[in-house]
Amino acid sequence: MSVLDRGLQYGDGLFETVAILDGEPRLWERHMARLRAGVERLALPPPPEAELHEEACRLSAGSGRAVLKILYTRGVGGRGFRPPEPARAMRILMRFEAPEYPAAWWSQGVDVRFCDLRLGAQPALAGLKHLNRLEQVLARAEWTDPAIAEGLLLDNNGAVIEGTQSNLFAVIGDRLLTPVLDEAGVAGVMRAWILEWAALFGLNWEEARLTRSDVLEARELFLTNSLIGVWPVRSLAGRRLPERGIARELIACLRAARLCLIPD
Amino acid sequence: MSVLDRGLQYGDGLFETVAILDGEPRLWERHMARLRAGVERLALPPPPEAELHEEACRLSAGSGRAVLKILYTRGVGGRGFRPPEPARAMRILMRFEAPEYPAAWWSQGVDVRFCDLRLGAQPALAGLKHLNRLEQVLARAEWTDPAIAEGLLLDNNGAVIEGTQSNLFAVIGDRLLTPVLDEAGVAGVMRAWILEWAALFGLNWEEARLTRSDVLEARELFLTNSLIGVWPVRSLAGRRLPERGIARELIACLRAARLCLIPD
Repeated sequence: MSVLDRGLQYGDGLFETVAILDGEPRLWERHMARLRAGVERLALPPPPEAELHEEACRLSAGSGRAVLKILYTRGVGGRGFRPPEPARAMRILMRFEAPEYPAAWWSQGVDVRFCDLRLGAQPALAGLKHLNRLEQVLARAEWTDPAIAEGLLLDNNGAVIEGTQSNLFAVIGDRLLTPVLDEAGVAGVMRAWILEWAALFGLNWEEARLTRSDVLEARELFLTNSLIGVWPVRSLAGRRLPERGIARELIACLRAARLCLIPD
Repeated sequence: MSVLDRGLQYGDGLFETVAILDGEPRLWERHMARLRAGVERLALPPPPEAELHEEACRLSAGSGRAVLKILYTRGVGGRGFRPPEPARAMRILMRFEAPEYPAAWWSQGVDVRFCDLRLGAQPALAGLKHLNRLEQVLARAEWTDPAIAEGLLLDNNGAVIEGTQSNLFAVIGDRLLTPVLDEAGVAGVMRAWILEWAALFGLNWEEARLTRSDVLEARELFLTNSLIGVWPVRSLAGRRLPERGIARELIACLRAARLCLIPD
C-alpha cells in the first residue's frame, strides 16, 4: 500500500472486524450496512460490495475460526486535509488467527475495570468504526493484568459509553439498557443484533445515559462485539454482579446460530 | 510499509511537517522537541534523532523550497488496541513540493470562515500532532471556495481553538492572545516560535480562552504554521479586520531569517 494513503496520513477511513466461522464471514450483511452508514457520513466512495463479499469469502474459506479485518480508506491523496475529488477508495482485507480467550470468560464471566481516560464528545464521528483510535490505544494501555478482560470508558460528562473493544449492556430493574452513542462510542454490529433480539423476544430495552453508579448497581452487565458475541461481567471494579441470566441466554442463542467465536 | 502498522490501523503515531528552504529543513530542533514531547505522552519508543536528522538533510538537499513530512508510528502490532511491548517504531520521511499559495495571502491577508464542526475535548491528546485527524478532514471538506484560505474551529464550549491547518493569534486591546490548547488543538512549532519572539520583543502575550465574538472584534488576527509562517487575516466570516501590523512585522522577521516558505 502507498504511504500516501489517507488511512495512514489521517486515519481517514473505516474498518470492520468480522468473525470467520466454519469458513464463512458471519453477520456479513450487518457489517456491510454499518460500513455503508459510515461511508455516507464520511462522504467516502461507496464500497464495491460484491467484490468485498467475494474477497471475504475467498479469505475465509478453509478457516474454522478466524478474524477478518477490513480497512476501507479514502485512498491516496496529496498533502493537506482536503479530501481529493473524486477519491479512489482503498480496501485491505486481512485474516488473523482467532483470539484465544479463556472459555471461562463466557461460562463464568469476566472481570472488568474502569479506565481513567475519558472519551471526548464528537457527534460527527460518534457511532462510526473509524480509524482514529488513539483513545482506545491509550485506554487499553492503562492495564496489563491479563485477568482483567476489559476496561469501561466514560465520557467527560460521566456517562459510561463502552469498553475499549466492546459495547456494554446493563440490566437495571426490568429493563435492558445500553449507552446512547450520539456523542462517542462505536455502534457495534453485535450490539445492533442484540437490540433486535431483545425486541423479538419482547424484552423491554432502551438506549440510555448510564452513570458509573448506575452500572455498579446493575443486576447484570455484559459486553458484546462481533468476535466474542457476549461476555457476562462477573465483577466490575472489584464488585461482584449478582446475575447473568440474559447473557447466558444470548450466548446459547449465538452459539447455536454460529454467529461469532464462542467456544463450543 | 506493512498494512499491519499501527499508524494505519489506529492512527497510533505522530507527524511533523517541516519547511525545506535552501536545501535545509528549518526549525529542526523545535520539530524534534515537539516530536519528543508527543512520544513521551503516547509512550512511543524514543525517536533516533541523529538518523532522523541525517535522513531529513539528505531528503532536503537540493530542494530550494519544499515540504518534509515525517510520520512516526508505533510500528507493526497484532490485532487489538493494546500497544506491543516492546514496540518497534516506524518512521517515514516524505518530500512534497512546496504548496503554491498566492503571494497576496501574505501581503494583503487571507479570507477566513468559521467551520461548523466542533472539536471534541480530549486533554490526553490535546496539543499533539498525532495521526487521528478525521476532525480536520471533515472540517476542511466544509468549503471548496479557493478564495477562502482557512476555516476556524471552535470546541463544544464555544472556545475558538485553531484553524484546520494553522494556529490562531489575536490582538485584542494591547495584548497578543492565542487559544489555550489543553483540551483540543495542535501546539504548532511556529506558534511556539512566535510566543518566544513576542517575549523577546517585550510584547504582552497570553494563552487565553477566546470566544467567537472575541475574535470577531479583534484588532488583528493572524494564522501560523511551519510552512506558511504567518498569514494576516484580512476578513473573518465576511468582516474586515482593521489592522495587520504585528503579522507584517513577523513576516518580515521570518522572511529575513528564512525560517519558512514565505515568498520573497
